[in-house]
Amino acid sequence: MRRISIFASMLLDEIRRYKLYLASQSPRRRELLSGMGFDFEVMPTHVEENHPAGLSPAEVVRYLSQLKLSVIDLNHFPENSMFIACDTIVVLGDEILEKPHDEDEALHMLRELSGREHTVMSGLTVMTRTHRATDHAETRVKFRNLSDDELRHYVHTYKPYDKAGAYGVQEWIGYVGIESINGSFYNVMGLPTRLLWTMMEEAVKK
Amino acid sequence: MRRISIFASMLLDEIRRYKLYLASQSPRRRELLSGMGFDFEVMPTHVEENHPAGLSPAEVVRYLSQLKLSVIDLNHFPENSMFIACDTIVVLGDEILEKPHDEDEALHMLRELSGREHTVMSGLTVMTRTHRATDHAETRVKFRNLSDDELRHYVHTYKPYDKAGAYGVQEWIGYVGIESINGSFYNVMGLPTRLLWTMMEEAVKK
Repeated sequence: MRRISIFASMLLDEIRRYKLYLASQSPRRRELLSGMGFDFEVMPTHVEENHPAGLSPAEVVRYLSQLKLSVIDLNHFPENSMFIACDTIVVLGDEILEKPHDEDEALHMLRELSGREHTVMSGLTVMTRTHRATDHAETRVKFRNLSDDELRHYVHTYKPYDKAGAYGVQEWIGYVGIESINGSFYNVMGLPTRLLWTMMEEAVKK
Repeated sequence: MRRISIFASMLLDEIRRYKLYLASQSPRRRELLSGMGFDFEVMPTHVEENHPAGLSPAEVVRYLSQLKLSVIDLNHFPENSMFIACDTIVVLGDEILEKPHDEDEALHMLRELSGREHTVMSGLTVMTRTHRATDHAETRVKFRNLSDDELRHYVHTYKPYDKAGAYGVQEWIGYVGIESINGSFYNVMGLPTRLLWTMMEEAVKK
């Protein structure tokens, strides 16, 4: 729901002069971008999410967020368009956990996360006709020890196959299983809103 | 929405054998307790939320969460009843910020929070016929510098008069204004779900 501000000098109003496109199908990202006060169009781009070998996790998410906008031809869009892409992964030690393909892989990921701290990383790319920038956010997340019954219940009931690391922080397992987080909560949900705000600010100021 | 588990040995199912009562009118607390997987009845108790002088902030929230259950006569409820009460405050230095009474007070609180770190504290009391326990959770929250236009926009649009510290972390100001949190996110929303889970576990094991 869009709300109109009576304070005309706000950055919010400057950004609202742009036509926003979100290159993502994630319902969480849509919800969060709405919560930031924006109307936008959802325009998922279809790219093979492969990245060169040898990148660090931060480089991977930055690369993939850029890749998602790489197929856009700016000439086909209004001059005041702004495009947003995001890629989120879960990093445990040296390992990158992406979306699980099936129940076994989801359970395997969650068993690894149980009782340990991991890092959620999101790469963000914001692009207008005159500006393009990429950055990333990191949040540390600590799970308590979860029993196998709890993990099976979660995977069976919530089917977290569209979620990096096989969990949603805004679902049952996030409520009862996460000890603490350190950093941006909304990054763990899939869109680092505070970082996006700063990047949008830079895009409209340029 | 309640979902039935096929894994009968779970704590979730043990707690579901109780009749749960939430002594709160807060829609956020209702949403979070639902998200934990429970059906419950909302039964706000009406007590004057005064506390003795000289208590520390942690003692205040613990005291007030106990107070909210103090008026309940267990004999009027089924034997397998479990009652939950929670009280949340915002602590900035030595000062306790409760709910603002009007726009001026809300703006005053938010100006104080802008650019600084504060602590959100929730006291929780869980009570059954044979068990009663109180505990509390603390989360550190850091706001970026917010302009007066931003604060006015937020207060005018979201009217945060039912929220301790005059903000909702799940609203616009939380998305664009919070740098980081350290601890339980859901505590900042008004119910430390992970702590509540542990306290419910202790209540059903006794």
